[in-house]
Amino acid sequence: MAANSVLANGGKGWSPGRLTAVYSEVQTSRLNHPLPLPSVVRGPFKIVDGPPSSAAGNPDEIKKLFPNLFGQPSVTLVPTGATPSEMAGSLKVGVVLSGGQAPGGHNVISGIFDYLQDRAKGSTLYGFKGGPAGIMKCKYVELTPEFIYPYRNQGGFDMICSGRDKIETPEQFKQAEETVLKLDLDGLVVIGGDDSNTNACLLAENFRVKNMKTRVIGCPKTIDGDLKCKEVPASFGFDTACKIYAEMIGNVMTDARSTGKYYHFVRLMGRAASHITLECALQTHPNITIIGEEVAAKKQTLKNVTDYITDIICKRSELGYNYGVILIPEGLIDFIPEVQQLIAELNEILAHDVVDEAGLWKKKLGHQSQLLFEFLPQAIQEQLLLERDPHGNVQVAKIETEKMLISMVETELDKRKSEGTYAGQFKGQSHFFGYEGRCGLPTNFDAMYCYALGCGAGALLHSGKTGLISSVGNLCAPVEEWTVGGTALTALMDVERRHGKFKPVIKKAMVELEGAPFKKFASFRHEWALKNRYISPGPIQFIGPGSDDVNHTLRLELGAAA
Amino acid sequence: MAANSVLANGGKGWSPGRLTAVYSEVQTSRLNHPLPLPSVVRGPFKIVDGPPSSAAGNPDEIKKLFPNLFGQPSVTLVPTGATPSEMAGSLKVGVVLSGGQAPGGHNVISGIFDYLQDRAKGSTLYGFKGGPAGIMKCKYVELTPEFIYPYRNQGGFDMICSGRDKIETPEQFKQAEETVLKLDLDGLVVIGGDDSNTNACLLAENFRVKNMKTRVIGCPKTIDGDLKCKEVPASFGFDTACKIYAEMIGNVMTDARSTGKYYHFVRLMGRAASHITLECALQTHPNITIIGEEVAAKKQTLKNVTDYITDIICKRSELGYNYGVILIPEGLIDFIPEVQQLIAELNEILAHDVVDEAGLWKKKLGHQSQLLFEFLPQAIQEQLLLERDPHGNVQVAKIETEKMLISMVETELDKRKSEGTYAGQFKGQSHFFGYEGRCGLPTNFDAMYCYALGCGAGALLHSGKTGLISSVGNLCAPVEEWTVGGTALTALMDVERRHGKFKPVIKKAMVELEGAPFKKFASFRHEWALKNRYISPGPIQFIGPGSDDVNHTLRLELGAAA
Repeated sequence: MAANSVLANGGKGWSPGRLTAVYSEVQTSRLNHPLPLPSVVRGPFKIVDGPPSSAAGNPDEIKKLFPNLFGQPSVTLVPTGATPSEMAGSLKVGVVLSGGQAPGGHNVISGIFDYLQDRAKGSTLYGFKGGPAGIMKCKYVELTPEFIYPYRNQGGFDMICSGRDKIETPEQFKQAEETVLKLDLDGLVVIGGDDSNTNACLLAENFRVKNMKTRVIGCPKTIDGDLKCKEVPASFGFDTACKIYAEMIGNVMTDARSTGKYYHFVRLMGRAASHITLECALQTHPNITIIGEEVAAKKQTLKNVTDYITDIICKRSELGYNYGVILIPEGLIDFIPEVQQLIAELNEILAHDVVDEAGLWKKKLGHQSQLLFEFLPQAIQEQLLLERDPHGNVQVAKIETEKMLISMVETELDKRKSEGTYAGQFKGQSHFFGYEGRCGLPTNFDAMYCYALGCGAGALLHSGKTGLISSVGNLCAPVEEWTVGGTALTALMDVERRHGKFKPVIKKAMVELEGAPFKKFASFRHEWALKNRYISPGPIQFIGPGSDDVNHTLRLELGAAA
Repeated sequence: MAANSVLANGGKGWSPGRLTAVYSEVQTSRLNHPLPLPSVVRGPFKIVDGPPSSAAGNPDEIKKLFPNLFGQPSVTLVPTGATPSEMAGSLKVGVVLSGGQAPGGHNVISGIFDYLQDRAKGSTLYGFKGGPAGIMKCKYVELTPEFIYPYRNQGGFDMICSGRDKIETPEQFKQAEETVLKLDLDGLVVIGGDDSNTNACLLAENFRVKNMKTRVIGCPKTIDGDLKCKEVPASFGFDTACKIYAEMIGNVMTDARSTGKYYHFVRLMGRAASHITLECALQTHPNITIIGEEVAAKKQTLKNVTDYITDIICKRSELGYNYGVILIPEGLIDFIPEVQQLIAELNEILAHDVVDEAGLWKKKLGHQSQLLFEFLPQAIQEQLLLERDPHGNVQVAKIETEKMLISMVETELDKRKSEGTYAGQFKGQSHFFGYEGRCGLPTNFDAMYCYALGCGAGALLHSGKTGLISSVGNLCAPVEEWTVGGTALTALMDVERRHGKFKPVIKKAMVELEGAPFKKFASFRHEWALKNRYISPGPIQFIGPGSDDVNHTLRLELGAAA
C-alpha cells in the first residue's frame, strides 16, 4: 500500500484554482483516500500483442479510413523482470476531457500524472482547457502535484473543464498539429465518449500519416454506459451516476409506500441507451420500468406504452395499491418510430406553412401522425408547435416525457373509470434525475477504475502505443488482479453514411435484450409490478458496508453473481 | 454500550410486513447499528418540575381552552438512586404518526418500545395505522420486537403509515375516547408537526376533562424545521432532509462550474418557512439564495426578487461567470404580499365572471394586480387561469416557482441585452428537490435524536405526565450528555381567530432575521454571489469523516462553533 499512497498523494499542496473555498469533511477525507492499483502496473511490465484486429463492421471501409492503424493488435500488460529499455525516457503528454461530465474524470488525469511521475521521471503533463477547443487554440495548463491534489477523488471536470467541440475539418487538424508540435508532445490522452474516441483515433491516424511522434490514447467516459465492449467492460461514471439516482429512487419508493397515494414517474438521464434506467431498476425494483431498446424492438407505439403502464396501475389498484414508482429513460420517445415520423412531418410543415388556429394545417399530417398528434396531451402539442430551436425544428429533447406519460395515463384511467373497469385514485408526481448524477464524488469503484485507466493510458504511451483505448478488465476481482491493456480503437468502429460519405463511428452499445442484465430484469419485473419489492440502496458510502460494491450491470455482464 | 445494543436490538426476527424484499447492504448495516442513549435514561431517574408555564401568546385565551393543562411546568429527567416506586407498573401505550414523512419516525417508535420493554416490563405498545384516522377507527397493530426490527434506523413511515386527518369534531373526540377505552390505554404518543401537536394537547385536555387515565405526549416531527423553541431545539427529519438536498445541490454546483454554461434554479421543499433553504445555503454556498421571511420583511415584490437575481447574474457575467446556482424556497410566492392580493382578486373574478379571450376581464383586477399579472410569464398566467382546484380556486401550490423565475429573469436579461448592459449567455435549468428528502435513511444524528425522543416520551408517560412534548436538549454535546424532559404543549401555543372563534395553534417557527443562522448567511452571501465558494457535502456517510456532523442551523442556534 505504501507505493500506492505515494502515487495517490503525489502532492501535498493546494491549488488556488479550486481551493479558494473550504471543502466539506467528506470531500477532504476523499482527497487523501489511497487508491490501490492493479499489481501489473506497480512493477516492471512488458507489452504483449494480441492477434491482428478487424472492425465492428465494414472492415474494408475502416481500413480505407485508417490505413496506418487498421488491424493493429490489442495489447496487454504482463509483469516482467525489469522495465524494457525502450521505456527509459521521459515524456511530454497532453490530456483533454471531452463531452459531458462523468464522475472520475479527475482520477484518470491523476492516474496518468502519477504514472508519469513514478515511471517516466522528468515527464510533463499538460491539461488542455475546455475540451478539444483547448487543443485547437493551444489553451493549456501544466499539471503539477499542487495543481492536481485538490481534485483527487473529487467529482466534476473543473480541473481543466470540458467541451463539446470536435476536431473535424482540415484546418482544425492543422491547428491540432501546430499545438502538439509547439508543446513537443509525445502523447495525447483523450477522455471521452464514443464520438470523442472516434476523434482520438482520427487524430492518431493523422499524426501517424504526417510522421509526427505524437501518439493518441483514448479513455472510455460516459455516465450513459453505452461505450463498452468485451475488452472495455465499462465506461467510467456510470457506476456513480446510477448509485446517485438509485439513492433518490429508493427514497421516493419509501415515500410512495409510506403515503400510499402517489405514482412517481422518474425520468432518468441517458438519451441514446437505457442502461442507466435498467441499472437503477436492478438496484431498486420499481413497479414499472420502460426500456427504450425493448420499445423499439417490439415496435411499440406511445399508446402501447401508455396501456402497459395503465394496465399495471389498474391491477395494483385491485390489490389495494394506489401508488408506485415508474422509471422512464430520457430517450424514450426517440425509440418510438411513430414519434420520429410525426416529428419529421411537423418539421416539414412548420418550415413551410402557417399553423392556423382552426387546425386546418393538421390535415397535412399523415393519417398515423394525425392520430398520434391528437393523442398527445395539449401541453405537449403546444410545446411541439411553439418551442422550436433556432433552426425552427421541433425540440424533442425538451419534452418532459414523464409529465407527458402522467397526462396520457390520467386520460386513459379516466376512460376506464367511466367504463367501470377502474375504481382507484391516481396522482402522478414527476421527477427528472440528471445533472445531480454527473458530478458526484466518484464511488470507490469509479475512483479506482479511473485511476487504473489513467495509469494504463500512461503505460501505453510510455510503451509507444497509439490508436488504442485504455482497457482495464477483470473488474469483479480484487483491484490487484485487474488486467491492464489497450484495445485498437479501429476494432470498435463501423461506418455510417453521412452526406454521401462514409464516416467512422464507434457504435453505441445499446441494452441487449439477450444480455444478462435485461434478462434478469425481465425475469423479475412481473413480480415487481404487483408486489412491492422496493430496495433502498441509500447514499453512496465510502467506508464500510456496501462501499466497494460494483453495479449490477457490470457484475451480470461479467458473469459474476449479482 | 452493551445496554444500548440490547435496547437497539430488541428483536432478531423479521417482519413479514416489510421484509418480503431484500434489503440493500446499507439498509442491512443500519438495522443492527447500535444507538447510544443519553445517560439519564440509561439508569434510574426522577422527574423534576420547572416553574409554572404560560403560553406563547394570549395566555388568558389558552387558559380558557386548556383549563386543566394550562400552566403546568415543563419537566426534566435527573438521575437518582433508584427508580421511584410510582413508576413500577407496566403500561399500555399507543403511538401514531401524523402528517408528512420525516426521516427518523421509525426510531421514535423504537425508542418508545425499547423504553417500555426495558423499564416497564410487561408493557404493550400499539401502533395506530394510517395516522389519526387509525385512532378514530381503532385500526391498530400490536408492536412486537419482530415487527419493529426491520424498521430500525430505516427511513419512511411505512411501519404503521401516517395520515393527515385531524381529531376535531365532538364525534371524532368520542371515537378517540372509545378507542383508548377499548385498548385500556395508559398513554398515547403523537408524532407530528405543529398541527398534530396542537391536536395532541387537545386530546390530553379532553381525556383529563373526562377523567380518563390516558395521557398524551407529543414528539416534534417535520423536515421543514419550523417546529422548535428554546426547549425543543429541533424537529426530527430536518437534518437528514437538508443533507440529502445539500448532496444534490453540491453535485449540481460542481456540474455548473464544470460546464460553465448553466444557471441551476433549485426549488426546495418547505412551504411555510425557509429553514431548509437557509440550511442548504450554509452547507453549500450557492451564488444566490432567496429566503421567504426576508422577502416578506422587506415587503419585496416579484419584480424586486427578479431584479436581485438578474443583477447578480449580470455582475457575474462581467467577471466571466455565465453559470451559477440559485436556491429558492418552495413557499416563496406565499411570502410576497402582492401575489397574495392577485390570487385573492383572481379567485373572486374567476368565481363570478367569464374569462374572455380579448382579456376584458383583466380590467376587473386592481391596478397593482393588473401590472403583476402582465409581468408574469405567459405559461404561469395560463396555469393560474386554467388549473384550478375543485373549489375553482387558483392553485398557488402548483406554480413551479423555479421555472417562473427562470422565465422572468430571461425576459429581464433580454431587456438589458437590448439596452447594452448585459452581454452574457443565460441558460436556466430547473430542479425541485422534495420527495427525495422525506424518506431517506436517517443520518446518525436523526437516528440518535429520534431514539432519544422516543425513550423520553416513554419515560414521561411512565412518570404519569400528559400534555407535554418530548424534549431532548444539549444536542451539540455527546449523546451521553443530552438532556431529556418534556415541555408543556400549552406553553408553545397562541390563538388564532377562525370563523369567529379562538383556535389554539402552535406558531410555526419562521427563519429569524436576527438569528445566528440567517446572520451568518447574510454576512457571507455577497462573497458567495460573485466568487464561487461552492462546497459539495457529498452523500450522507454513516461511518467515518462527517458521519456525526450536526446541521449548521442547530449548531448556530445552540451557539456551538459551526
